[in-house]
Amino acid sequence: MTDCQGDCDGAKSPMELYEELTAQGSKVRSLKTMKAEKAEVDAAVQLLLKLKVDYKKVTGQDYKAGCPPENSAIPDNGPAADGADDEDTVDPWNVSTTNAKGVDYDKLIVRFGSNKIDQELVDRIEKVSGQRPHHFLRRGIFFSHRDMHQVLDAYEKQKSFYLYTGRGPSSEAMHVGHLIPFIFTKWLQDVFDIPLVIQLTDDEKYLWKDLTLEQCHRYAVENAKDIIACGFDVNKTFIFSDLDYMGACPEFYRNVVKVQKHVTFNQVKGIFGFTDSDCIGKISFPAIQAAPSFSSSFPKIFGSRTDIQCLIPCAIDQDPYFRMTRDVAPRIGYPKPALLHSTFFPALQGAQTKMSASDANSSIFLTDTPKQIKNKVNKHAFSGGKDTVEEHRKYGGNPDVDVSFMYLTFFLEDDEQLEKIKQDYSSGSLLTGELKKLLIETLQPMIAKHQERRKQISDETVQQFMTPRPLNFNL
Amino acid sequence: MTDCQGDCDGAKSPMELYEELTAQGSKVRSLKTMKAEKAEVDAAVQLLLKLKVDYKKVTGQDYKAGCPPENSAIPDNGPAADGADDEDTVDPWNVSTTNAKGVDYDKLIVRFGSNKIDQELVDRIEKVSGQRPHHFLRRGIFFSHRDMHQVLDAYEKQKSFYLYTGRGPSSEAMHVGHLIPFIFTKWLQDVFDIPLVIQLTDDEKYLWKDLTLEQCHRYAVENAKDIIACGFDVNKTFIFSDLDYMGACPEFYRNVVKVQKHVTFNQVKGIFGFTDSDCIGKISFPAIQAAPSFSSSFPKIFGSRTDIQCLIPCAIDQDPYFRMTRDVAPRIGYPKPALLHSTFFPALQGAQTKMSASDANSSIFLTDTPKQIKNKVNKHAFSGGKDTVEEHRKYGGNPDVDVSFMYLTFFLEDDEQLEKIKQDYSSGSLLTGELKKLLIETLQPMIAKHQERRKQISDETVQQFMTPRPLNFNL
Repeated sequence: MTDCQGDCDGAKSPMELYEELTAQGSKVRSLKTMKAEKAEVDAAVQLLLKLKVDYKKVTGQDYKAGCPPENSAIPDNGPAADGADDEDTVDPWNVSTTNAKGVDYDKLIVRFGSNKIDQELVDRIEKVSGQRPHHFLRRGIFFSHRDMHQVLDAYEKQKSFYLYTGRGPSSEAMHVGHLIPFIFTKWLQDVFDIPLVIQLTDDEKYLWKDLTLEQCHRYAVENAKDIIACGFDVNKTFIFSDLDYMGACPEFYRNVVKVQKHVTFNQVKGIFGFTDSDCIGKISFPAIQAAPSFSSSFPKIFGSRTDIQCLIPCAIDQDPYFRMTRDVAPRIGYPKPALLHSTFFPALQGAQTKMSASDANSSIFLTDTPKQIKNKVNKHAFSGGKDTVEEHRKYGGNPDVDVSFMYLTFFLEDDEQLEKIKQDYSSGSLLTGELKKLLIETLQPMIAKHQERRKQISDETVQQFMTPRPLNFNL
Repeated sequence: MTDCQGDCDGAKSPMELYEELTAQGSKVRSLKTMKAEKAEVDAAVQLLLKLKVDYKKVTGQDYKAGCPPENSAIPDNGPAADGADDEDTVDPWNVSTTNAKGVDYDKLIVRFGSNKIDQELVDRIEKVSGQRPHHFLRRGIFFSHRDMHQVLDAYEKQKSFYLYTGRGPSSEAMHVGHLIPFIFTKWLQDVFDIPLVIQLTDDEKYLWKDLTLEQCHRYAVENAKDIIACGFDVNKTFIFSDLDYMGACPEFYRNVVKVQKHVTFNQVKGIFGFTDSDCIGKISFPAIQAAPSFSSSFPKIFGSRTDIQCLIPCAIDQDPYFRMTRDVAPRIGYPKPALLHSTFFPALQGAQTKMSASDANSSIFLTDTPKQIKNKVNKHAFSGGKDTVEEHRKYGGNPDVDVSFMYLTFFLEDDEQLEKIKQDYSSGSLLTGELKKLLIETLQPMIAKHQERRKQISDETVQQFMTPRPLNFNL
């Protein structure tokens, strides 16, 4: 074609539209990543929506990232997470919705092709573990899963499994939302008594952010302290930095290469929205997040066993990595990892987006003082209350969009107290200021205790957690 | 856009311009689609036209949508090795030409943007090393270089360098052509007395071939024996399998990730011809072949030094990897590696293609018996002789296309004897059968001695060469 191609008008083919949409999707993503001006982002989103309408007009189908009009790169796993839904954008780098209640998680389950954690599964976890389900399960904070029944079936037959979760160490500061997967993982480890591996993707952060390798590695070690402060048992838990562990365990690299051989650029383009302008490190990184899903990546813990199933508790935005992993697993002779997905932890400003460490005003950090916590909640926490005390008393507040109430569902363990707060707030007998006070009084001691525990953690302890070694299990 | 671009300085590369043009083209298109205001469309079109002029200025070509510039990653090094030449295809996976004399190496130097090894450079190597140049240099078998004068300048000022070469272990059997870089590298090491690292890319072979990781790793170890049999000194030489070394040296992985951050898919597509259907392992592999070009990948040998220059002797088909490496090096703070390029070792059937281990009839293996060598040369070696003895005596043979003669230029060390053979063959006084006999009598003892040396090499010796360790140098 000549150079007029880019400029010509005229009817576009489904594939042209598809490619334009994919390009626009990644433009929106990079504008958001780059924190471009709101007007610019909005304009780009408008164009994205318009293209989606055009696409549907031409093809009769909804646009789905990773599913070009003719064929799909990951046929059995459903569409990818790139904001293809009407309003919600959910992928490893972006979460946003226009709905003040937050992402529509039921729709997300359908879009991702996962399964809802229903009452039956919660009851079964209680039966198999012999423990009351964690309030994250009771309250639907962990709301979606893949193959959890299979994990429980095997566990009932004395076949153990292991846990894998992780964190991308993009800064020294972790916020309260980062604790969610670790709090829940700790509970799972306690009730099932199983090994746990925690990946710190310092290599990923180097590839994605304007940081040096040394910075990313330092953040990994600092973040490990916050993770250890959640109470993990050093005899049952291995924490690793990719930058260290890749150079310490040939079996890990072998699994990375195995995955890399079985995933094409077309597939990661579809799943993650990578483009030709992305660096080759980003393009191959998903294999590095995939590899810890296989027990043979940890020979010191699991010996030569390749068949121990992995259960991954994580926020739902990480699912694209593990859809890919589950697609590859049987082709390289390993069991598919099972998953438990959590909702996002909302930003102080509202559930339209998740809490982000790079936006100090949206976040309550684990390093915040009691005063900072109080000020942030009072100043920034989006309220579902009415404009005046009179109206609030008369009509009541809306806990479904109230960020303070949402945070209490995460951190207030007493179900009855939480229910009473909900009733009182809805009826108007509890005012916004009073609700915020309850949250502040919950967060302040929780974070103070965390800081106290973190202070006790020496560099030697971190070193111990991060040394490849056998754990206290006989597998 | 991507992190990689942030590091580029000043003038835009052809690929940056190309990407900017593509983005601007789609902006114009969407403005038109959205029926934006005329002034806005006009401004966008003006910028588009300006970018097109810039593009032509930089690349000498018209911009064509969907056709990235061929020399994207290598603005200072000429176009990539993708068969753009009239007849010759030369890249890491394919070498072919229609010319019975073999690839046109003078054209290749122009195409790759390297420099010819001229008499002046050969003389200088002799002066600096104090040794008579190897016959591979005297006879133009190593014919092209990058920055060799710079290496010699530094060496004269007591600044040392190190050697890096390698092999892709795709089978147990190595053929005589595989010896060329190692024979020459050994000579370089002897005359300059410098450290040598040899990479065995077993991960690459796993990604490209239908082989298991275990097979590729075993081939690496077997091939190491043949390499050691070339006479390398264990106190000066480190041989490594990627599958082992990646998991043994965090500094190596760190350099791999650094390279991976600074090379885009667009670039490897331009350089290596990768497509969207290639697996992500292939796409990111070039960084693994690049990393040994940096001394910090070998902390046991070079300590914390990052500034020791690397000299890479290799066949010219490997140059695309190192054009990429040289493009990246200054952006990650490392010196560019220098190169010495050899011609290809021709197949028995003729110089239209190189000897290939996967075609038994094209190759003389290092495991062949004297009888096999004799039979293969007599049966398969393409002859430049005439059809009948009478014609041959009358018109003479053509040594330029005669494979037996070509092999003698590689392996017969005596210049006078070689010249006499050439004269006699050209004049017709030496018959094809006699020429073949001379080759057979050269190869048989050479290969027998190799086999004898190889037999002496124990697993422990291999283990010793392949253990990361300090070498006997004070750097």
